[in-house]
Amino acid sequence: MDTVIPTEKELQQTQREIAPYIHRTPIWTSKTLNRISGASLFFKCENFQRMGAFKMRGAAHAILQLSEEQRERGVVTHSSGNFGQAVALAANELGVPAYVVMPKNAPQVKKEAVKGYGASVTECEATLEAREAAAARIQKETGATSLHPSNSLPVILGNATAAMELLEDQPGVTVLCAPVGGGGLLAGTALAGHYFGNSCTTFGAEPEEADDAYRSFHSGAIQVNTTTATLADGLRTHLGDQNFPIIQRHVSDIICVSEAEIIFAMKLIWERMKIVVEPSSAVALAAVLKEKQRFRDTEIGIVLSGGNVTLSELPFS
Amino acid sequence: MDTVIPTEKELQQTQREIAPYIHRTPIWTSKTLNRISGASLFFKCENFQRMGAFKMRGAAHAILQLSEEQRERGVVTHSSGNFGQAVALAANELGVPAYVVMPKNAPQVKKEAVKGYGASVTECEATLEAREAAAARIQKETGATSLHPSNSLPVILGNATAAMELLEDQPGVTVLCAPVGGGGLLAGTALAGHYFGNSCTTFGAEPEEADDAYRSFHSGAIQVNTTTATLADGLRTHLGDQNFPIIQRHVSDIICVSEAEIIFAMKLIWERMKIVVEPSSAVALAAVLKEKQRFRDTEIGIVLSGGNVTLSELPFS
Repeated sequence: MDTVIPTEKELQQTQREIAPYIHRTPIWTSKTLNRISGASLFFKCENFQRMGAFKMRGAAHAILQLSEEQRERGVVTHSSGNFGQAVALAANELGVPAYVVMPKNAPQVKKEAVKGYGASVTECEATLEAREAAAARIQKETGATSLHPSNSLPVILGNATAAMELLEDQPGVTVLCAPVGGGGLLAGTALAGHYFGNSCTTFGAEPEEADDAYRSFHSGAIQVNTTTATLADGLRTHLGDQNFPIIQRHVSDIICVSEAEIIFAMKLIWERMKIVVEPSSAVALAAVLKEKQRFRDTEIGIVLSGGNVTLSELPFS
Repeated sequence: MDTVIPTEKELQQTQREIAPYIHRTPIWTSKTLNRISGASLFFKCENFQRMGAFKMRGAAHAILQLSEEQRERGVVTHSSGNFGQAVALAANELGVPAYVVMPKNAPQVKKEAVKGYGASVTECEATLEAREAAAARIQKETGATSLHPSNSLPVILGNATAAMELLEDQPGVTVLCAPVGGGGLLAGTALAGHYFGNSCTTFGAEPEEADDAYRSFHSGAIQVNTTTATLADGLRTHLGDQNFPIIQRHVSDIICVSEAEIIFAMKLIWERMKIVVEPSSAVALAAVLKEKQRFRDTEIGIVLSGGNVTLSELPFS
């Protein structure tokens, strides 16, 4: 398959297209975290994005690319997390029917959120096979277009707009750091850094317990996770063939962090910045703290991916 | 004792004096919380204040009132919570020695924070008597000035500046709501509403499990708590003779809420606004939600008092 790398113009057009459907989230700093890291950190607060995560950007953009006929038939996705909520909300805004397949064991609060945005929820067993089968069945019955949460160029383009905004607001940033799970956020961030940064390099941050991107990046071919036993539930997914070529070309390195490092970083953000972020967001700060020497005295943009957590299941002890 | 009510001019002067030492915190809104409450809520985010709580305002102002000689001898307070941190930080900024008496069982993270701000920490038994005795001893030995966290006009004046800023930014606000523990924040908020609001009324919010202000307000004489079994650890203290006359004159009513209502409101703020607030802050939202009919369609300013929580001891289940 040919490598398709989106162009600067496509990124700019994406930003214009999705602007009415998203929040331009703030960028926050913390003197304490600057002191601890020895760098100047600029946090792009996608936890304050609509539905609580950057996923709104990619979902809105993907639905906007559909034809009138496709919009009428609707969109379908399977998700236990943020992408389902993003598709539900974006579809609702655009008057498009949305079908979201969710595993039975997904938190009730997430099911309610998706229903609250007006989507039709189908529950299934908690396996990838069951999820894919249910989505395929709905697709066949309704003619809805299937949306993938990360391995899709429209989604990658939408995700890129978070780092584009960051670089517009903080043009002195020379390092970007984003968590990597499915790879859609990291690929978008790297494209933004490449086209709109000032000699800007992009780093991925990944849990050691779901290190497929790290191994793929260093081996040059997509690897699968051998474990997904990480607290960072948003990062348990696999790289895809749409985002991997972008990551190969435009990411400088991927830094893996332990579960303890993730919890430490998450606690720092909650305690010092007084904001709620999900474990996946803390992975990016954990990576920057792990490689302090590498980043000393640089201006670093960190994408805080989202803030949807189950408050009764926090990792703090 | 004569009732002393601070003047409009004193509030304005306080605001000018403490400005260099505090953050002007943002005011946040939430469409979801507006929908749930049936009102327009404006949250004054003192959780983003320096050291994480509004207490910085009163502490800075109280220390600024001291003579050169008093400053040299330092300040002393006893606190298990935010006021100790506020005194430590404000004193540090002003080059004044600070002595903070803390109960042995105070969380380690709070002791570290006070020490981190350069204060001298003395540990004592976890009783009010032991705390007062230790503070008195230090006062005698060092000549330091004792600072009370709430029953003090300089502290009340400092606290008033949070609501002053809120009313400057949102002049349409006609109801202010602040939690009441010792009474210093509520008295200051009521003064701000009186002098700078547009026909603005002020309400106190108090846990049923520490309802001395409610009973004092309705009986006309200071009552003591019969229980302090509330999660809202910042509100377990007693009203004082400096703030009670101000509350009597300028507060419209005090609304009591249950522990379940506090947890519900706290969860709403964390989940929907993605910010970390302490239980005491949630008490004010809980009161507004409890009396929805009373506040329907009004613009309400809610003082979120702070965000210092022990993450390993959250009430969410």
